Amino acid sequence: MVARLIHVEDPDDPRLAPYRDIREKDLVGRDGRFIAEGKVVLNVLLNGSRFEAESLLILENRLAGARPLLDAAPDGLPAYVAKAPVIDALAGFHVHRGVLGLGRRGPERTLEGELAHLPAEALVVVMAGVSNHDNVGAIFRNAAAFEADLVLLDETSSDPLYRKAIRVSVGATLKVPFVRGGSTKAITASLIGAGFRCLALSPSGGSDIAAIKPGGRNAIFLGSEGDGLAPSVMASMEAVRIGMSASFDSLNVAAASAIALHRLWRGAGQVSGPRPPPSGP
Amino acid sequence: MVARLIHVEDPDDPRLAPYRDIREKDLVGRDGRFIAEGKVVLNVLLNGSRFEAESLLILENRLAGARPLLDAAPDGLPAYVAKAPVIDALAGFHVHRGVLGLGRRGPERTLEGELAHLPAEALVVVMAGVSNHDNVGAIFRNAAAFEADLVLLDETSSDPLYRKAIRVSVGATLKVPFVRGGSTKAITASLIGAGFRCLALSPSGGSDIAAIKPGGRNAIFLGSEGDGLAPSVMASMEAVRIGMSASFDSLNVAAASAIALHRLWRGAGQVSGPRPPPSGP
Repeated sequence: MVARLIHVEDPDDPRLAPYRDIREKDLVGRDGRFIAEGKVVLNVLLNGSRFEAESLLILENRLAGARPLLDAAPDGLPAYVAKAPVIDALAGFHVHRGVLGLGRRGPERTLEGELAHLPAEALVVVMAGVSNHDNVGAIFRNAAAFEADLVLLDETSSDPLYRKAIRVSVGATLKVPFVRGGSTKAITASLIGAGFRCLALSPSGGSDIAAIKPGGRNAIFLGSEGDGLAPSVMASMEAVRIGMSASFDSLNVAAASAIALHRLWRGAGQVSGPRPPPSGP
Repeated sequence: MVARLIHVEDPDDPRLAPYRDIREKDLVGRDGRFIAEGKVVLNVLLNGSRFEAESLLILENRLAGARPLLDAAPDGLPAYVAKAPVIDALAGFHVHRGVLGLGRRGPERTLEGELAHLPAEALVVVMAGVSNHDNVGAIFRNAAAFEADLVLLDETSSDPLYRKAIRVSVGATLKVPFVRGGSTKAITASLIGAGFRCLALSPSGGSDIAAIKPGGRNAIFLGSEGDGLAPSVMASMEAVRIGMSASFDSLNVAAASAIALHRLWRGAGQVSGPRPPPSGP
């Protein structure tokens, strides 16, 4: 075991301060850090994340099950171990997942910096006004599955490092590079400047996604579920629709992203072998 | 207006009994009825549902916004109107959506009866062990968008008329015919007997979904997110995978259903015109 186990009995132990009142801090922010929860997500945080872990907090009776996680942790990472009443009093609710982790956000990346590092063939996902945490997380999960190189979120979309978004993404928000900020208009201009074909996914799109081929540099724009993409965004690029029933033309934005990203995946069209079943939840 | 407005002030009014303790009844069942909530879902219940509405319950200050709904209701449908404290005391939680409806389940359909009515070209979705209400609702939404003719759920999958499943489906569970019950093995045998090509969606599938063409009678089997389809189910039919990243082979079951159903949609390959933006949430 490489993580350093530290048994704690006092919910007021100052070393545990970042885990205090988790839900309230979800709302007001937590000063350059984020909380990840559950074994699947923490496994991504410790292996293959672009963020650094600062500590873990483990329910005492889940210690045996958490051992592979602890073995994979960086040498000396503090892993606080406590009984359920201590953790519940600290977190402010019943923590049934048993394992929590604290990550450091690190310096924010910039749009221009990220675009400069993309390969000649690249796939970018842009969220414009996607404020629902479940949808943000689900879109990141699809972005990781279909190997998007970068996710961009305008200033009105919600934070991918919000606890629930991380959980729904099964850790993809810790893995796929992203930049959040700026207007959709500014993001579009930067992408066009970097040679991207910008595609607005919309039921009123003039092209069918089934006719779009992967290859080159593609950016797919997703709007909010209620209002979709703004007319000014739609007018500035090619709009693409997903063919579906005329009498029930309603697709969740994350489901739409799955369909579009599967079509634009750079592996599409290649013959790939079957894989063993996934281990995720 | 065709619904009959009835103002109520007493949360103990016996006519409102079906709306009492909504969350508790979600767990124990409600005797042949179900609760639908929100304007989008109630609009489906009153227009294009296969179920009958028994009554509506509307927050007094939402009455103006609910008027189109009331106008579309069957003549004389009781629409109870009450202030927020009355509705909250009755329902047992804060009902922020403002409009609720009570539907009647009616006689359960049978697998053989439903199969007998399907057209020569048909698309069926089968859920085997899908117990998460959000996933059941999201899969129904995709089934409606891609015009599945029937949804079958094995006895271990959860109830599509559970309140949250109806809500997540944006009403699709009220619209797409379904039968719930029996084992996956029995469902498979009936589908094969009815001339269906049974396809198990699985990361270990030998065929790629991109190579499967719509047409004829297709049934797509979806397993639980954690464990997937049982080996015995996989062994009894053709297994199909969705090509994706080898390093993040994790797709939500509803996202997987969206991709597969879009490929198997009978409108796929046809040239369809763009549509106006959807009105759903």
